[in-house]
Amino acid sequence: MKICIIGSSGHVGYAINGVKKDKDLKIMGIAPGSKGENIERILNLIDKKEKVEVFDDYIEMLDKINPDIAVVACHFGDHARVTTSALERGINVFTEKPVATTIEDLEMVKSAYKSSRKKLCAMFGLRYKPWFLTAWHKVKGGAVGEIRLINAQKSYKLGNRDEFYKHRESFGGTIPWVGIHGIDWIYWFSGARFKSVYATHSRKYNRDHGDLETTALCHFTLEREIFASLSIDYLRPESAPTHDDDRLRIVGTEGIIEVLKEKVYLINKECKGEEIPLLPEGDIFLDFVNEIKGKGKCMISAEDSFYVTYISLMARLSADEGRVIYID
Amino acid sequence: MKICIIGSSGHVGYAINGVKKDKDLKIMGIAPGSKGENIERILNLIDKKEKVEVFDDYIEMLDKINPDIAVVACHFGDHARVTTSALERGINVFTEKPVATTIEDLEMVKSAYKSSRKKLCAMFGLRYKPWFLTAWHKVKGGAVGEIRLINAQKSYKLGNRDEFYKHRESFGGTIPWVGIHGIDWIYWFSGARFKSVYATHSRKYNRDHGDLETTALCHFTLEREIFASLSIDYLRPESAPTHDDDRLRIVGTEGIIEVLKEKVYLINKECKGEEIPLLPEGDIFLDFVNEIKGKGKCMISAEDSFYVTYISLMARLSADEGRVIYID
Repeated sequence: MKICIIGSSGHVGYAINGVKKDKDLKIMGIAPGSKGENIERILNLIDKKEKVEVFDDYIEMLDKINPDIAVVACHFGDHARVTTSALERGINVFTEKPVATTIEDLEMVKSAYKSSRKKLCAMFGLRYKPWFLTAWHKVKGGAVGEIRLINAQKSYKLGNRDEFYKHRESFGGTIPWVGIHGIDWIYWFSGARFKSVYATHSRKYNRDHGDLETTALCHFTLEREIFASLSIDYLRPESAPTHDDDRLRIVGTEGIIEVLKEKVYLINKECKGEEIPLLPEGDIFLDFVNEIKGKGKCMISAEDSFYVTYISLMARLSADEGRVIYID
Repeated sequence: MKICIIGSSGHVGYAINGVKKDKDLKIMGIAPGSKGENIERILNLIDKKEKVEVFDDYIEMLDKINPDIAVVACHFGDHARVTTSALERGINVFTEKPVATTIEDLEMVKSAYKSSRKKLCAMFGLRYKPWFLTAWHKVKGGAVGEIRLINAQKSYKLGNRDEFYKHRESFGGTIPWVGIHGIDWIYWFSGARFKSVYATHSRKYNRDHGDLETTALCHFTLEREIFASLSIDYLRPESAPTHDDDRLRIVGTEGIIEVLKEKVYLINKECKGEEIPLLPEGDIFLDFVNEIKGKGKCMISAEDSFYVTYISLMARLSADEGRVIYID
């Protein structure tokens, strides 16, 4: 299977690492997806023995190589345009999240997806981490009963971000870029649809990062009066032992499970809060490749990718406008 | 100093334990504060050698004994009425939270308080726990810089609650009863005023507890775009090692501190997330008594007690009406 990489701004590593594990896969071409995007970073990640063609224009690359999969990871405001170009050419798309940074762009992608009859998967790669995978399997196995309340947390170090992070148009916002993972967990674990969102965000103390929001807080109401909080910040101190501090707490009628510091803890009739042994890590890219090969279903569907992106944009709208947004 | 106890439904233990440590203090009388309240529970807590008079009518008790302090801990919907009676008689009040369960009742207490020129303190006793006290002193010492984001959690076992918990009128609601502690931490740590609140709550799966809300979620915006989440539930499994799972995470411009499982963890320039040694536990009742004696200021002021109660009622209103409430 031929693979092309477009952009170097997101988690292209998912694809590059996946390719190394499957002999059927070959990276054929690389091109920037956004104006001024430097693709040196990816070239350094790829095996020097591989002969990979470098293009200035991703359209030219897609037309020349006609790959089976386009990996889209350019500036976030350009995901939708690039994804649409690939789908229109009948190419499967593995795209960085969010799928789009505006509702109009999201509709454009959805429309191209429907016409294409191809596959699409957004990079909700955290689902494949041992701690999230383990907690999810426990919940689906009934370990906490009916879910009633979810608390999610994303906390990142800010460091010095590229220029495109500083502009809403190219970055999209901290809720759709960082918070979207939490929204994905909430949806993935609960399987419930979102009814409303109330969110706030603030650019204060963003250390010269322009439009980038340093803190955000989302309050979701899902079907069956399930509530979910999502706390997001770029204030994790540089001295912290890890880049991120992802957390998830699922409160159910029969128990509480949580992901904390890359471990999973469960309290229910059988467990008193002890650590649960972790499942091995999954591979998001190979999961997607296998679906394309007809070998099973990828854990992240195109519908999930669109819906979670949509909810992240509704949350951003709520924060921008300071009002509760009701979701159809 | 003469002390009277009115009611047996709240944390009268704070007063009873405080009395044991200070020879100046003596419990003179006990009476129920609410219809049908059984005060046997307190009689069992008191030293048998003490001669304590038991009354059926707390008004009669206050008029006969004329105590220095009335300890108010009856059904929560009756706190305001009883507190007002005591203040009107020139008696200092140590009351269970919330100070009142309706805005009208809160105004009544505030008015009586102003006229009385006496002292009042609500039982935000968790402030005196070593973990909260330690974290608070660190934050006030500048350990996290400017506060930007706060995540608070209250999680309790439900068990089988008394009948009065099952009715909004006598119970007041889970946000004013349980959540109020989180609101108090947010206010106490940040020192910032609340600008708005959006909250939701649900009675589903409350195991025949009538009006009692099993889950609730509050989203506060404070001055300077400080955001605070508060997650509340009565779903902590009976098998859990402790009754409660109180948590607090304070994200600042220079660090993050958190209270988790009765420990305190700090990340900033000097600390990489390690546990902080704990200060000794404080005594809320003796802190209040000392203020009455003229020896310093109680950590919980009457203003704090009123304001935090007010915010809890605004949060409940938001959840009842499904809208953002803006606070003056």
